[in-house]
Amino acid sequence: MEERILELIEGKKYGQLKEIFSEMNPTDLAIILSEVPHKELTVLFRILPKELAAEVFVEMDTDMQQFLIEAFSDRELKEVLDELFMDDTVDIIDEMPASVAKRILMQTDKETRKMINQLLAYPDDSAGSIMTTEYVDLKTNMTVEAAFARIRKVGVDTETIYTCYVIDASRHLLGLVSVKDLLLSQTDKTIGEIMEENVIYANTHEDKEEVAALFDKYGFLALPIVDKENRLVGIVTVDDAIDVLQEEVSEDFEKMAAILPSERTYLKTGVFETFKARIPWLLFLMISATFTGAIISAYENKLTVLPALIAYIPMLMGTGGNSGSQSSVTIIRSLSLGDIEFRDIFKVIFKELRVGVFCGGVLCVVNMVKLYLIDYLLMKNFDSGKELYEMITICITLFFTVIVAKLVGCILPIIAKCIKVDPAVMASPLVTTILDAVSLFIYFATAGVVIGL
Amino acid sequence: MEERILELIEGKKYGQLKEIFSEMNPTDLAIILSEVPHKELTVLFRILPKELAAEVFVEMDTDMQQFLIEAFSDRELKEVLDELFMDDTVDIIDEMPASVAKRILMQTDKETRKMINQLLAYPDDSAGSIMTTEYVDLKTNMTVEAAFARIRKVGVDTETIYTCYVIDASRHLLGLVSVKDLLLSQTDKTIGEIMEENVIYANTHEDKEEVAALFDKYGFLALPIVDKENRLVGIVTVDDAIDVLQEEVSEDFEKMAAILPSERTYLKTGVFETFKARIPWLLFLMISATFTGAIISAYENKLTVLPALIAYIPMLMGTGGNSGSQSSVTIIRSLSLGDIEFRDIFKVIFKELRVGVFCGGVLCVVNMVKLYLIDYLLMKNFDSGKELYEMITICITLFFTVIVAKLVGCILPIIAKCIKVDPAVMASPLVTTILDAVSLFIYFATAGVVIGL
Repeated sequence: MEERILELIEGKKYGQLKEIFSEMNPTDLAIILSEVPHKELTVLFRILPKELAAEVFVEMDTDMQQFLIEAFSDRELKEVLDELFMDDTVDIIDEMPASVAKRILMQTDKETRKMINQLLAYPDDSAGSIMTTEYVDLKTNMTVEAAFARIRKVGVDTETIYTCYVIDASRHLLGLVSVKDLLLSQTDKTIGEIMEENVIYANTHEDKEEVAALFDKYGFLALPIVDKENRLVGIVTVDDAIDVLQEEVSEDFEKMAAILPSERTYLKTGVFETFKARIPWLLFLMISATFTGAIISAYENKLTVLPALIAYIPMLMGTGGNSGSQSSVTIIRSLSLGDIEFRDIFKVIFKELRVGVFCGGVLCVVNMVKLYLIDYLLMKNFDSGKELYEMITICITLFFTVIVAKLVGCILPIIAKCIKVDPAVMASPLVTTILDAVSLFIYFATAGVVIGL
Repeated sequence: MEERILELIEGKKYGQLKEIFSEMNPTDLAIILSEVPHKELTVLFRILPKELAAEVFVEMDTDMQQFLIEAFSDRELKEVLDELFMDDTVDIIDEMPASVAKRILMQTDKETRKMINQLLAYPDDSAGSIMTTEYVDLKTNMTVEAAFARIRKVGVDTETIYTCYVIDASRHLLGLVSVKDLLLSQTDKTIGEIMEENVIYANTHEDKEEVAALFDKYGFLALPIVDKENRLVGIVTVDDAIDVLQEEVSEDFEKMAAILPSERTYLKTGVFETFKARIPWLLFLMISATFTGAIISAYENKLTVLPALIAYIPMLMGTGGNSGSQSSVTIIRSLSLGDIEFRDIFKVIFKELRVGVFCGGVLCVVNMVKLYLIDYLLMKNFDSGKELYEMITICITLFFTVIVAKLVGCILPIIAKCIKVDPAVMASPLVTTILDAVSLFIYFATAGVVIGL
């Protein structure tokens, strides 16, 4: 399909293209147009029916949108803008350079411009920044029939009609009715009689991630957003909530991999931009490894007496780091899903302590067997005359490192959440760096006690 | 609120509770009931209005559901089951022990039972396993008015009425109409005239994660599911798609932290279960660290000549691991969002190569300065007479380790995807273990060339 379209574009068969395009899904169409050279874009965009053109425009990436806006005449620009939903318009303006943003605003009428400026003023991570101001509002004294008339009148310009919001004269939110309720009610009942009054809503300045989590928890299709005076100012729809959930996950992944979050997709991000997102944590973690280096340096002379111990440093640090990541990642995910809270900290610690003892115990025993059979008998790694003590040192270190790793891994993210730092930052690399130092301390302390190093 | 309810429960004020409960959101109510001792549960559940009772029941966790089912009389059980949607019934049966599942099936009529058994037969990760069979179906020759009559008739028992599916006599999917389209159309138009014919659908045996990704991509509220003969057999709704997306993310997190995926929330999982999910990878990674140990052992005697080099092993391995995780996690997330595909592998490799050269270069220079100023001049870590050569060895190793780490980190997940292994398994711990060995190889090879070790 895609190939055939690209062929038709090359052959400039606009008549056939027009027919194919008009039947296509806007998302798919935007993907195909992203493969086309920019100079063809304007012509192709012009053959789209007006409504579809706007839908495709919303799905395009910022570069393409900017290119098109700059190619549009004022009239064309206005035509596209008239078809857009308010939240999409605001998102586009937000991404454009100032001159383009200004040109867009000039094509909107005074009232719309005021609304756009209001929406632009909400902080980037607030519910206000993802809401749309177009929804169906009803009054309590309307009949079901009158409600349908209103839906027919304003519905074509709203993002969803399936949940209608009931407000009083000063726009306070009184309740909601779904179109399903309306369809299943007698037409002469009033909205006041059939509306649901226990409405779950959010405030414009609430964190958009918390608002998105409500969709996951309750299965909403839309959520009303009110201002400080509890007046209804907009709604968030489920598709925007899914976007927020996905962005949040990507951000968590990045933080957990010690990368500064970025907003663009991988292939759209330049090499230098990727470099800038990755180098700060790499530098910080490299410098902080000075501590592990310092600990080893302090024991350098003693290690040359029992060089076999050196070979097990990576295994001990690795197992410590892996054990810690297992806990920290589990806790980070549970915190973000709302499965655990700060008040559960002692339950979590107690559980991780027991899991740590089990894991540490099994690893300790398996390692002892492996050390004796493979490393000692088969590979003859130990020849200092203190073999047994060395092996015991390694296994005891393993046991305690795993337990400490589990505890550090579970405590750090919970504390981070409590002091309002994103728990994801407390994931693998940072925890691992701390545990590297901890496991060396345990190693040399144990060696001191067991071997008298 | 929650405290007041718990107080009322303790005081057995069922009259007041009934009133409060009937106004509450089912999800919230299920959360509150999870705090109540099991013996109170049956009484409290019985005071709920029938429809709400079923909605609360669906939101409860498996333990509570099983307890209630066992406490129900056959008539009570049937009443709850009659109010449930088909997909929820199937999910519940799927989680129950065989005896309870059998009792549930006995309370359903023959036709429903046949349908349930069909749904139970779909593999756990297929679209069929998350679909519901209750939806509004229309015929092309119906008028808009007749369509509304049908929605009013069957709508009360379907999960969504907002998208209606148009089928022919043998249930082949012909198109869809939204209730919005119906409301905005003249009542005497036929469904055939107004329906959307380019319908995006999925097959029952498709991977449920791929189906959920379609909701993210297109912003659907529901997606039709067809069987092998292209007959409509069910729909997936957006709330279930969000659940799948969230489960998938949790699974990716677990795999990336070297944990076997589990289905229960953290606090609901027993200590032994958590232990079982974590120990296999810990054991595997511990044993595989034998390789790094073996490499160090091989150079043991040489290292005792230049002991200062030992202190930098953790830093080199750590930086290698971190650099590799940055790439692998970015690539894993981009693969699962569909931002990159196998055919992009050379673009990705070329990009990571350049990012690796930049990152490695900066780290190399910063480290040289730090080694000279802090480690050499200030802390006097080097005293072998070959200081400069040692420092150069460390920095060259750093440079090449970072580059190799970036390449390994990006290539492994893409190859995993290509051979149908979940890329998330190729994340941090496995990549890190490989890179530990690689960085040591580079270290000792460089030391051999530069110092002649």
